[in-house]
Amino acid sequence: MTQVSFLNGGSRLYGIVGDPIEQVRSPETVTWELQRRGEDALLVPLHVASDEFEAVFPALLRLRNLHGLVLTIPFKQRAVRYVQHLGAQASVMGAINVMARRPDGSWAAEMLDGMGCVTAFRQRGYAIAGKRLMLIGLGGAGGAIGAAMAAEHPRLMRIHDLDPARCERMASAIRLLSPETEVVVGEPTVDGVDVLLNASPVGMLDDARLPLNVQALPSDLIVFDAIVKPEQTPLLALAESCGCRIVRGREMMLGQIPRIVDFLLAQNRQGELVRAS
Amino acid sequence: MTQVSFLNGGSRLYGIVGDPIEQVRSPETVTWELQRRGEDALLVPLHVASDEFEAVFPALLRLRNLHGLVLTIPFKQRAVRYVQHLGAQASVMGAINVMARRPDGSWAAEMLDGMGCVTAFRQRGYAIAGKRLMLIGLGGAGGAIGAAMAAEHPRLMRIHDLDPARCERMASAIRLLSPETEVVVGEPTVDGVDVLLNASPVGMLDDARLPLNVQALPSDLIVFDAIVKPEQTPLLALAESCGCRIVRGREMMLGQIPRIVDFLLAQNRQGELVRAS
Repeated sequence: MTQVSFLNGGSRLYGIVGDPIEQVRSPETVTWELQRRGEDALLVPLHVASDEFEAVFPALLRLRNLHGLVLTIPFKQRAVRYVQHLGAQASVMGAINVMARRPDGSWAAEMLDGMGCVTAFRQRGYAIAGKRLMLIGLGGAGGAIGAAMAAEHPRLMRIHDLDPARCERMASAIRLLSPETEVVVGEPTVDGVDVLLNASPVGMLDDARLPLNVQALPSDLIVFDAIVKPEQTPLLALAESCGCRIVRGREMMLGQIPRIVDFLLAQNRQGELVRAS
Repeated sequence: MTQVSFLNGGSRLYGIVGDPIEQVRSPETVTWELQRRGEDALLVPLHVASDEFEAVFPALLRLRNLHGLVLTIPFKQRAVRYVQHLGAQASVMGAINVMARRPDGSWAAEMLDGMGCVTAFRQRGYAIAGKRLMLIGLGGAGGAIGAAMAAEHPRLMRIHDLDPARCERMASAIRLLSPETEVVVGEPTVDGVDVLLNASPVGMLDDARLPLNVQALPSDLIVFDAIVKPEQTPLLALAESCGCRIVRGREMMLGQIPRIVDFLLAQNRQGELVRAS
């Protein structure tokens, strides 16, 4: 439970917009990070009904003390049209998960859902640049992870999803973000792969399956699983038993929080930085 | 500085809408009172620009987790049209300072600005019913105090303002709220008066004047001053030196907080109570 130290008439307001909203964690985690940095600011849940989004959302943006928003399901695509400045990953993905007001009143946005994964790898000291990746699952989370990883410029990205259209979109996105990265669409494998990324739901909750057909994993493989519950998925259990290095879904979740706050504050203060120079 | 203990995706949201917003105290005081009562709820500042109120305000009311609002300058009159159920004092005053969502989705509102004064008198044990009152100043605060005091059914209300239209409106409001109360419009006096209420700005900050032309006050007079800064106004200083009982502006300010929370929660839960009976 977050202890909020700042709340007064002058507090800066941030929000998370979604439908439903009860399950979101940003009010606790992002507020904690904002206040840890000494900001007189907090992030509150803003429950907009999906069928009222277009009527309610533009009005929210006119609240003078609302300085930024986190977007969650089902609004990550629908919010794009209200933004004036799109970041590189948001442009490629056609979706955003964070937007912030600039000093001139315009809104800038980015898709940082996959950045938590990159941050988690960095904090473990595992480089992505030049490596060969296998990414399984290209839904919302997988697409974002793929785009964020592509921006790190791996040598090869093998991608897999049951939906061919998702594979095509992901391949196009990777080529835009990192033209030098080789893209291969195909079945999940660990042959010729340095990093295995699971963003499919296989292994979630009581699902005892692995997301690919293997009995063992090479010990020099790095294995990431986006699943948060359970913390120890069947894939991660196998990876640890084979001596692989691993990165957990929880690390990705936590890794995103400082990136969101970095983005919010950098955009909010852009004018100050310009004026100060 | 309020320590907010509850903030998560399921927290109920309340707001205060005003322009400007930085000076408001409700985010601290009302949040404190909500959380003291064990509510997973907080009240945040919502800065709506005055010239955008009609465009922004109705959309705010569609936030599904927004359960109530405090209204402040300059919106106390303009918010009335968005409310389906008006309380007695709000109806008479044509203004509201609090509105809350009922379980059926409709909004109920009341004008409680003057209720803090009544609460402060109650907490001191000073009855209003049957007493003779002199009220000086019939602006926003004075009008609300007059209406709240009228609802306590004093025997006589003498009222004074430099603006004759305000005197007429106040006299009409008192007659609606308490037909048995005698209303007299005229110059400030303490002759035949049990309770003296100052709601004029005379005596505020560095103003050394008294709001009425007297050298001394009867020791059995009860004297209230709505002014918060300074805490000890020239009128209250004279009253104390004459042995009068006094009620301070700060007591009125604090007295309003539990009344606001009472209203918010009672309206929010109306359906529960009905279903439970």
